[in-house]
Amino acid sequence: MQIEVLTIGTELLLGFTLDSNGAEIARSLANVGVRVVRRTSVGDRGEEIRDAIRDALGRTGAVITTGGLGPTHDDVTKNAVADLFSAPLEFDADVWQALVDRFAKLGRVPAESNRVQAQVPRGATVLPNRWGTAPGLWLEGAAGLAVLLPGVPREMRKLLGHEVVPRLVARAGGPRRVIRSVVVRTTGIPESTLAERLGDVDERVAPLTLAYLPGYDGVDLRLTAWALPPDEADGRLRAGAELLWARAGDHAYGEDDADLAAVVLAAARSRGLRIAVAESCTGGLIGKRLTDTPGSSEVFAGGVIAYDDRLKTGALGVPEALLRAHGAVSEEVARAMAVGGAERFGVELAVSVTGIAGPAGGTEAKPVGTVWLATALRDEVEAVRVMLPGSRAEIRARAAQAALSLLRRRLR
Amino acid sequence: MQIEVLTIGTELLLGFTLDSNGAEIARSLANVGVRVVRRTSVGDRGEEIRDAIRDALGRTGAVITTGGLGPTHDDVTKNAVADLFSAPLEFDADVWQALVDRFAKLGRVPAESNRVQAQVPRGATVLPNRWGTAPGLWLEGAAGLAVLLPGVPREMRKLLGHEVVPRLVARAGGPRRVIRSVVVRTTGIPESTLAERLGDVDERVAPLTLAYLPGYDGVDLRLTAWALPPDEADGRLRAGAELLWARAGDHAYGEDDADLAAVVLAAARSRGLRIAVAESCTGGLIGKRLTDTPGSSEVFAGGVIAYDDRLKTGALGVPEALLRAHGAVSEEVARAMAVGGAERFGVELAVSVTGIAGPAGGTEAKPVGTVWLATALRDEVEAVRVMLPGSRAEIRARAAQAALSLLRRRLR
Repeated sequence: MQIEVLTIGTELLLGFTLDSNGAEIARSLANVGVRVVRRTSVGDRGEEIRDAIRDALGRTGAVITTGGLGPTHDDVTKNAVADLFSAPLEFDADVWQALVDRFAKLGRVPAESNRVQAQVPRGATVLPNRWGTAPGLWLEGAAGLAVLLPGVPREMRKLLGHEVVPRLVARAGGPRRVIRSVVVRTTGIPESTLAERLGDVDERVAPLTLAYLPGYDGVDLRLTAWALPPDEADGRLRAGAELLWARAGDHAYGEDDADLAAVVLAAARSRGLRIAVAESCTGGLIGKRLTDTPGSSEVFAGGVIAYDDRLKTGALGVPEALLRAHGAVSEEVARAMAVGGAERFGVELAVSVTGIAGPAGGTEAKPVGTVWLATALRDEVEAVRVMLPGSRAEIRARAAQAALSLLRRRLR
Repeated sequence: MQIEVLTIGTELLLGFTLDSNGAEIARSLANVGVRVVRRTSVGDRGEEIRDAIRDALGRTGAVITTGGLGPTHDDVTKNAVADLFSAPLEFDADVWQALVDRFAKLGRVPAESNRVQAQVPRGATVLPNRWGTAPGLWLEGAAGLAVLLPGVPREMRKLLGHEVVPRLVARAGGPRRVIRSVVVRTTGIPESTLAERLGDVDERVAPLTLAYLPGYDGVDLRLTAWALPPDEADGRLRAGAELLWARAGDHAYGEDDADLAAVVLAAARSRGLRIAVAESCTGGLIGKRLTDTPGSSEVFAGGVIAYDDRLKTGALGVPEALLRAHGAVSEEVARAMAVGGAERFGVELAVSVTGIAGPAGGTEAKPVGTVWLATALRDEVEAVRVMLPGSRAEIRARAAQAALSLLRRRLR
C-alpha cells in the first residue's frame, strides 16, 4: 500500500517550524509496511489544501493530513475534503458533547467558534481525540482514502498510534512487507577503523542494508530491512545486530536511542560502585548527562566543575606545583583531578576531564581540541589524551562522551 | 515571486531525517521576499523526481531542489532537469578540474564514478561549491527556473547564501516585499501574565503580527512583517521590538537566538564579578550552559555538583543539622549552598539550586517540580521557591533557566 503525507501550516512554508509530524508519520507507516511515496507541505489556504489533497489522491489514492483543523483555521481542511468527496459537512452531536465535556473539566464552556469543530463530512468515521479538542477523521469514498489529523504533535502522535495505524494495517490485509531498522551505537572508534573491523558484514547481512551514521557521540550503525514480511524483517535485524555487536567489540554500547550515560549508571549500580566527576572544559556537561537519567542519585554522588585553576587546587587538591609545571591541560593534572575527586567525595570511581575547547586558548603544543581524561577506580588511575575535532560545542560534547566511554570501560 | 522547494532523499520518506534543508530555504527566501508556496519531498528515484519538478514548474514556474546529486545517486536530479529543459548533459572541464583539485588537497584522486559530477545540462550556470564536491546548478529556460543544490546541509546553506539568494533578488528586481520577523525573548513570567502586561500591543504594532511562543526557557514573542518593503519591514520590526521590551520590563533579556547564559556572563564581566554554581537537581546543567559561551572562563570560576547530600556538607559546608531539620529541598539549604559556594570558591556571586526533578522523590508537601533557588551576592542572600511543570528533563531545564534568570536580576 502506498500513501502520501500532507502537512498543513503557513509556519512550515516560512521555515519557522520543522516538519516533525511528517517525519513521524513516515516512520510509523514504514514500520507497518505502508510506503510513503511523497510528502508535501502547504499553507493554511483552502484552495492550496484542496489542490494538494486532490493531487495526492490522484497519484496514490490515499493521503494523511495534519493541521488545518480547529477553530482558528476555520476548518479549511474539512471543507476541502467535503468538497473532494462530495460529502457535505454535518453537525455531529457526539463530537460536540465530547468537546463540551472536555471544556467542562477545565471549568470552561466552548465558544460559538468551537461549533465548527463538531462539523463532520457525511460518512466520515470520527477518530476520538482524548488528548485535545479536534478529533481526527477517516474518510473513504470514490476519491480514495483521506485521513485528517490535528497538527498538535502530541495529539497527532496519539491518534496515529491508537486509531490510524491499526486501521491501515487492517485495511491493507494479507501478507505485509515492512520497512524496519535497528541501530547499533558505537563510540570511541573512527568510522574508517570501524569499517575495517566490520569487514564483509554488509554482504553477510544482505538483503539488509548497512548505513554508517557518524555523529559527535560516535558512529551509529543502522541496519534496514526493506519490504520484508514482519517476522523475517525482525529475525534478520536481530541476527544482523548480533553480528554488529560481535564485530564492533566493546565499542558497541547500545541499540536505537540508548544513552551511554544510562549504560554507565546501570553498570556501576550492578557493581555497587558510586561515581564522581571532576570537570574542567566540559563545565558540568558530564554531570548533566549522568543526571538526565531518573534514579541516577543511587550511583552518582556529584563532583566539581573546576573551570578556574584555583578550584582544581582548592576543591580537588591538585598541587599548585603540578599546575605550574605541566599546565592545566596535562596528564599529571588529569590524574590528580580524578584521584582528588574520588578521595574528597568518598566514591570508588571518578572521572576527570581537562582540555582546550576553544575557540581561543590553543597553542602549537596543545592546539584546540586537546583533551586529557583520567579515571580513578580505587587505587588504579588510567589517563588518556584525545584530539577532538569540531567547534567548541562539538569538542565539549565529544569530550563528555569520551569520559562516559572511559567510565564504561573501567566498569567492564 | 513565488517558488516551490523540493527536497530529495529516501531518508525523508522514511522519517529517518527531519527536513531541515527545506525549512532553512523557506526561511531564507521569505527574508528576501520570495514566497515558498509548497514544499515537497520525494525519494531518490528519477521518475518521482522528474514528476515532482515538472509539477512544481507547472504551478509556479520556479523550483529549488536539494539532494539527489553526487556519485552515489547517479545524478538522477540532473538527468530529470536535462529531460524537462531539453538540455542534454555535457562534460564540463572546469567542474572536473575543481573536483580534481579538491581531491588533490586531501591527497586523493577522484574515482571514475566521480565523473558524473562534472556532467552539466547544456546552458546551465554552475554554482561553484567550495565546501564539497557537488556544485549547484542554475537552469532557466522555457520550462521555468530550476535551482539544484546538494543535500549536505552545510554545503546547501553556503550555496544558498552565497549564490542563490543574491541571484533570486536580482532576478525579482523592482520593489520587493519581504517577510521578516524578530523575536523578543522573555523568561520568568507566565504567558497569561505577559499577555496582560502587553495589553494592546498587538493593535499598536499592526500590520505586524504578534505570536506567543511558550517554551521551557520562557515565552518568546515573535513579531512578523508580512509582505512589506524591506526598509518598512525593518523599521516597523525595530519599533515593535522596542515596544515589547518596554512592556515586558526586566523579563525581556534578548532578541532572536539570544542565550540567557551569555547575557549573564556579559553583565558579570561588565561589573567585574565572578560567578560560581552550587547545583543539586540540575546536576551540572547550569555550569554547562554558562560554559557553552566562549570566553566564559573570565567570569565563571566553577562550582559543585552536590547531588548527594554528603557533598552538600563536605564540599559546600551546609550543616548536617540544617539538612536534617529542613530536608535538602528547602529555603535554608538553598541559602547555605549559595553562601558556601561563594565563600569556598572565592567569588562574589553564587547561585544554588535544590529541587525534585522526578519522576520519583515527590511528597505531598514537596511534590515533583518543587525547586528552591538562592543567590549570594557578597553578604546579601536571596531565595525563591518555584513550582515547575513538565517531565524530568523539562523541570531541570526550567530550573537552570530560573537560576540564570536570578543571576541576571542580581546583576542589574
